[in-house]
Amino acid sequence: MAFKDAHIVLTSHPSQVFKDSPQVQWGASTPLERGPIVASLTDFSKRNAIGTHSGSYALYRALAATAGQLEIDHRPDLKNTEPVVEFGPYESWSGHKIVSLDPWGAHVYELFQDFLQKGYDIRPTIAVTSAHIHMPELKKRVSEGKLPVDGKVVLEKGDVVVTKAAVEPVWYLPGIAERFGLREGELRKGLFQYTGGMFPELITRPDIKVFLPPIGSTTVYVFGDIRDLANPQKKLTLRVHDECNGSDVFGSDICTCRPYLVHGIEEAIRGAQEGGVGCVVYFRKEGRALGEVTKFLVYNARKREGDSADKYFYRTECVAGVQDMRFQELMPDVLHWLGIQKIDRFISMSHMKHDAIVSSGIKVIERVPIPEELIPEDAKVEMEAKKAAGYFTPEGAPSEEDLKSVKGRQLDE
Amino acid sequence: MAFKDAHIVLTSHPSQVFKDSPQVQWGASTPLERGPIVASLTDFSKRNAIGTHSGSYALYRALAATAGQLEIDHRPDLKNTEPVVEFGPYESWSGHKIVSLDPWGAHVYELFQDFLQKGYDIRPTIAVTSAHIHMPELKKRVSEGKLPVDGKVVLEKGDVVVTKAAVEPVWYLPGIAERFGLREGELRKGLFQYTGGMFPELITRPDIKVFLPPIGSTTVYVFGDIRDLANPQKKLTLRVHDECNGSDVFGSDICTCRPYLVHGIEEAIRGAQEGGVGCVVYFRKEGRALGEVTKFLVYNARKREGDSADKYFYRTECVAGVQDMRFQELMPDVLHWLGIQKIDRFISMSHMKHDAIVSSGIKVIERVPIPEELIPEDAKVEMEAKKAAGYFTPEGAPSEEDLKSVKGRQLDE
Repeated sequence: MAFKDAHIVLTSHPSQVFKDSPQVQWGASTPLERGPIVASLTDFSKRNAIGTHSGSYALYRALAATAGQLEIDHRPDLKNTEPVVEFGPYESWSGHKIVSLDPWGAHVYELFQDFLQKGYDIRPTIAVTSAHIHMPELKKRVSEGKLPVDGKVVLEKGDVVVTKAAVEPVWYLPGIAERFGLREGELRKGLFQYTGGMFPELITRPDIKVFLPPIGSTTVYVFGDIRDLANPQKKLTLRVHDECNGSDVFGSDICTCRPYLVHGIEEAIRGAQEGGVGCVVYFRKEGRALGEVTKFLVYNARKREGDSADKYFYRTECVAGVQDMRFQELMPDVLHWLGIQKIDRFISMSHMKHDAIVSSGIKVIERVPIPEELIPEDAKVEMEAKKAAGYFTPEGAPSEEDLKSVKGRQLDE
Repeated sequence: MAFKDAHIVLTSHPSQVFKDSPQVQWGASTPLERGPIVASLTDFSKRNAIGTHSGSYALYRALAATAGQLEIDHRPDLKNTEPVVEFGPYESWSGHKIVSLDPWGAHVYELFQDFLQKGYDIRPTIAVTSAHIHMPELKKRVSEGKLPVDGKVVLEKGDVVVTKAAVEPVWYLPGIAERFGLREGELRKGLFQYTGGMFPELITRPDIKVFLPPIGSTTVYVFGDIRDLANPQKKLTLRVHDECNGSDVFGSDICTCRPYLVHGIEEAIRGAQEGGVGCVVYFRKEGRALGEVTKFLVYNARKREGDSADKYFYRTECVAGVQDMRFQELMPDVLHWLGIQKIDRFISMSHMKHDAIVSSGIKVIERVPIPEELIPEDAKVEMEAKKAAGYFTPEGAPSEEDLKSVKGRQLDE
């Protein structure tokens, strides 16, 4: 491949005239005015984005290409991949309500046919499909008669019908900077320096405003008609969930993640069954976006130091320097992509999530805490600490004294 | 912070004498000869690695620091974070059996105290903790009397006691290149170019041999005594599992991921209960490391084109250019870190996983397919296609004709 043996350019520069790259007018009201996002790995003259597709899986693609297992100039055949149900465009797709994903990202195959035919490498950053899911906890609820079979959302054996979407991050850097009250230059410098020097184009190409960061994607699960999310007449039940592999998959009892997730799904289903619509959004932000190594280090320190609720956040700060890195400021973007204007029942106690959603212009009508009986034994430490820190709780926050008395299991127990 | 306002260096160069950075002798038999991995974000003169810690979460850290929520020079307080059980060092920790993780990564706090006291920013890349997990499927098995309560691995209510480890990627570039039959320079060039220009130091610093890539971590779950993994006298039951969020968490019925994972855990528990030891390794390689957007695009194309087993792999290749990007070549590293020399019962049908493990010098005695009754209805397409492609199956691979007749659900069903 000629490209492979080409001279290595360490970074491109704005002085190199890339007249072939389409202009991006972020927030424009039509897709053609906005322009396609091009992150080609072979034709740099057409690029208008820093980084590349597939988030952190870009590394695996690079490995595959280098090892000769993938032709790097392979163009995806997108026939028949389009969304299984059409929705949008919504008013929220223009302007700066959305800065961390591409609202047109599911439809590049139709919208940018002209560009594709001229050889531009444009890829979907969103895919929308349908599925049947079955979770043992929900099947149990069905068999106990606590969750009705309606033949539409919940099928006979307890299978649940969903529409689901995978959403890759697409960052509009001026918008991200604005969201955090930073100058764009500060943001670019920080992202470059504090990652150990990732993507010099963040510095050398201030004219390129879009960045595809190597982070995880987001998944949306919808119960009922996805179009109803944008209909204020339809009652919406919604949970925003941040990944916790240890609980979500393996059921670790030190936190409430899977129980609360399942509860959110059940409530979302119920909402759909009652004529409304339900939605659960799953973010890949393991261990408060600190990662699992940090999480396990903190577990050890907590357990070795008596694991009381009053010291819950303290040990995370000691190890990580912060309590949390999830940046809920960007989280509402996906809700705006779905056209959501208000949430009738918000299945979350997080004040950070709540405040971010409300600040972004979405109303939250009712907040639903996790039912007491779903909190695993060892997770009481987390729950009480979070309530004291501002999590929503109808019965009021625990006192400093209360927190000291809530203790978790020891390591050898 | 002085650092924040410093002149931006786009990439460092070997001609700049960084006499403070410790030498890394990858594969040396003692940790001090090997040397610590230093990926400091503030003191570049001490670095001996490209990239930085926490895999893809490094982006969130950069955002936190830029937004002023984290002091970038915060040093983790590692007191009480050390592993809950000691194991190793094993013979496999020296040499080049391990090139994609740091075998000493769980013990930096003790091993490199001298360096830490001199101000080197050295962080654990592995954390080992213990937990109780409870999965509804296992609780059901316990309540049905099919999985015994032994009070040690399986507790009364069906809770399961585990030791678990989170492992961050640490790539020794010459070793990775060797594994794929590439020259080191080719690998560096490919990783840089095919990610859209990530980390110019891959090119400009051929003297730096270690790279911390922004990809997901790996989690090890051990049932029984983790030290028994290295004891050939102890029967080992093991599953290597690649993440599939749609099934592992949400129970999507298009694949066998969660059912096979749960079966692997049950068999691992059983092995431990019978005096052996069990292990499940969980890799963050969503959708065969193609990511979830690609996965959902492929689902749509499959379903719209009749979804028969004979075309299963074809649609992935159309969209992604390859069938699979998981690179099982690196997977056995974590098994060598655990001291594993043979696997008595391998709970996987993948020939790619099997072959990678055997090629790395670990014996596989028995291969255990997923029990027929655990295969969800819509997952038969995947299962038959995989058997035809070389997956292990005691009853022999299906024919081309067989494959045509195995069909999945349509999108609107």
